[in-house]
Amino acid sequence: MSWIEDPAFTADAPFGPQTLPYGVVPGGVAVRVGDQALLLRGLALGERLEPVVATGTLDALLAAGRPTWSELRARLVEIVSATSAPRGAELVGLDGAVLPFAVADYVDFYSSRHHAENVGRIFRPDGAALLPNWTHLPVGYHGRAGTVVVSGTPIVRPHGQRRSSTGPVFGPTGRLDIEAEVGFVCGGPVASRLTPDRAVDHVFGVALVNDWSARDVQAWEYQPLGPFLGKSFATSVSAWITPLEAFAVARVSPPPLGNDVLPYLVEERSWGLDIDLQVEWNGTVVSRPPFREMSWTFAQQLAHLSVNGATVRPGDLIASGTVSGPARDERGSFLELSWGGKEPVVLDDGERTFLEDGDTVRITATAPGEGGSVVGLAEVVGTVVPADER
Amino acid sequence: MSWIEDPAFTADAPFGPQTLPYGVVPGGVAVRVGDQALLLRGLALGERLEPVVATGTLDALLAAGRPTWSELRARLVEIVSATSAPRGAELVGLDGAVLPFAVADYVDFYSSRHHAENVGRIFRPDGAALLPNWTHLPVGYHGRAGTVVVSGTPIVRPHGQRRSSTGPVFGPTGRLDIEAEVGFVCGGPVASRLTPDRAVDHVFGVALVNDWSARDVQAWEYQPLGPFLGKSFATSVSAWITPLEAFAVARVSPPPLGNDVLPYLVEERSWGLDIDLQVEWNGTVVSRPPFREMSWTFAQQLAHLSVNGATVRPGDLIASGTVSGPARDERGSFLELSWGGKEPVVLDDGERTFLEDGDTVRITATAPGEGGSVVGLAEVVGTVVPADER
Repeated sequence: MSWIEDPAFTADAPFGPQTLPYGVVPGGVAVRVGDQALLLRGLALGERLEPVVATGTLDALLAAGRPTWSELRARLVEIVSATSAPRGAELVGLDGAVLPFAVADYVDFYSSRHHAENVGRIFRPDGAALLPNWTHLPVGYHGRAGTVVVSGTPIVRPHGQRRSSTGPVFGPTGRLDIEAEVGFVCGGPVASRLTPDRAVDHVFGVALVNDWSARDVQAWEYQPLGPFLGKSFATSVSAWITPLEAFAVARVSPPPLGNDVLPYLVEERSWGLDIDLQVEWNGTVVSRPPFREMSWTFAQQLAHLSVNGATVRPGDLIASGTVSGPARDERGSFLELSWGGKEPVVLDDGERTFLEDGDTVRITATAPGEGGSVVGLAEVVGTVVPADER
Repeated sequence: MSWIEDPAFTADAPFGPQTLPYGVVPGGVAVRVGDQALLLRGLALGERLEPVVATGTLDALLAAGRPTWSELRARLVEIVSATSAPRGAELVGLDGAVLPFAVADYVDFYSSRHHAENVGRIFRPDGAALLPNWTHLPVGYHGRAGTVVVSGTPIVRPHGQRRSSTGPVFGPTGRLDIEAEVGFVCGGPVASRLTPDRAVDHVFGVALVNDWSARDVQAWEYQPLGPFLGKSFATSVSAWITPLEAFAVARVSPPPLGNDVLPYLVEERSWGLDIDLQVEWNGTVVSRPPFREMSWTFAQQLAHLSVNGATVRPGDLIASGTVSGPARDERGSFLELSWGGKEPVVLDDGERTFLEDGDTVRITATAPGEGGSVVGLAEVVGTVVPADER
């Protein structure tokens, strides 16, 4: 029996000892144990590990690299599995968790074939659903790092330009949407030209991401240089980062692309992950996007983005792109769920196409862990507040 | 007579007392005076200013905001205009200047109509030269902040995928290009929803930017989410940042857009700037791009990018987009100068379409200053080195 007496700290719950995600609460760097946070600052972790977790962010831990990550995780598993509380152990609540790391560059990919095809059909009904480059490289773009916010941050409905029959008009977006995604938080030494197999040592952990999107703004602005204000107002990430090591038994092969890929994108053993997402809209579960359906893995994404010599740094955030499966109730955006606003989504409290003020979206996820346990990704949640009418 | 005896420190030279750009040399934060750097660390600047320049970067100065910027500039004008050297003054060489600030978000605009039309004609010969949104909003996208490098950094020819008749192939780019741009370095308090007039207080200074581009990589990857690996390998900026205040008399009105703009983009008095760029390729001047021809100003760009609630932070770098004028010898990229590789550019040492290994590109610029003086933007220079054949 662990000294941590918390009904949520068990192997069949998402935040048991098999998960141990990292975050930052008002007391400092912590690991989540069930519905509590264990502060790391008071624990006897040894002179190598203690300075790495002594600051108010995960930045030093991200920079420290894989050997330190493994050593710390092993030590924490020991500590949380002990029968009596170790000296200096302090459990606190989960409230007040902040964005736990400084986001360096934020890259958003587009790696679900179902999502790319759905969006292609909705935005370009007369063209090919999938563009010719899509099966040869993980398509992606840079987003705004400065507006990545922690789960729970209210989302102010953004203003922007949108198309009308009389020319562009300006005002609050009428098509506020989500994108349910999985994010990979980078760390370790600054490096470039990573192979997919080396890329793994540059990923510290995994978070959930909601890439809020203003579809009317995006549709008018995005040619020819891609999404900009339709996305840059806010991107939410979960407050707790689950270490990549927790996903060792969740590895799966992604669905085939239908063509060979160039050698720099070939994985020895694939890093597809069997993660099940769940999207709740005002408490109604509207979708269960399957991450195992993603066509490109984070290892391939990192190999691609660094193959031109671009460096990967600690704090880089790599988002998967919207996770959508083949079924209607597996779609990871409301654009797709409502098919461009034409087919309302039925919630317990009414019908919706896009987000209304006051709506709350909560995304959660789990993956299989060792010995039949459940590995959790912490929720990413956000509530829409009315546009700033200054 | 100033105590600084340097033939390059005069009102009719670019780095006279009217310019005083900031940078960081091995001795710390400095202002450029002619061909030397005056270290700020030893100067008696008072207890408010001294801590702001005491670190090894411009970051604290960027964060300090307009009143501090004005006060420091006024004090430095006094110091460099004195007839005898003040206590603690130390002049050093310009060598070893580093990237003087931490780049937060890097946004690259596309605000030259001539450039946008040229690229449109080259890439989409059967479509409209200019897309319909272009005259209504400053089109832009986020670039990679982590690969912004200081002038002088060698540029390794990047690898990437490009289209071929038999499917995509991989290797070093065969179409390595430049984009001659002007960059605006942000500072002051974190803010959003800036009007063009308020935006000015969030711009610390001006630098030259070379947005190196691999055109073959870009052409294959850029649909539908915009440029990614074709740009992300390196973006060079000048080592010295000229304060915005130095451009007070260089303000001009941009050419008309041909339609009204939405009220949030209207400037009371325009921030177009009469800056003359010059592009040298292996020592041959191949272009003189006129910045006064840009259709959107930095004030409008900042108003646009923050109108959706996105915050502007110290260290954000806003690049103008390629500066191209109407004449052939005013084009700011080799894609345009060689018209997609079809019309070679004649250099003193041979002909070129795109960059070859060993080639050096140097971009410089000047603007009119007070009383007939010349305000300089420091060079941004880079030499292409062969691809990494790991």
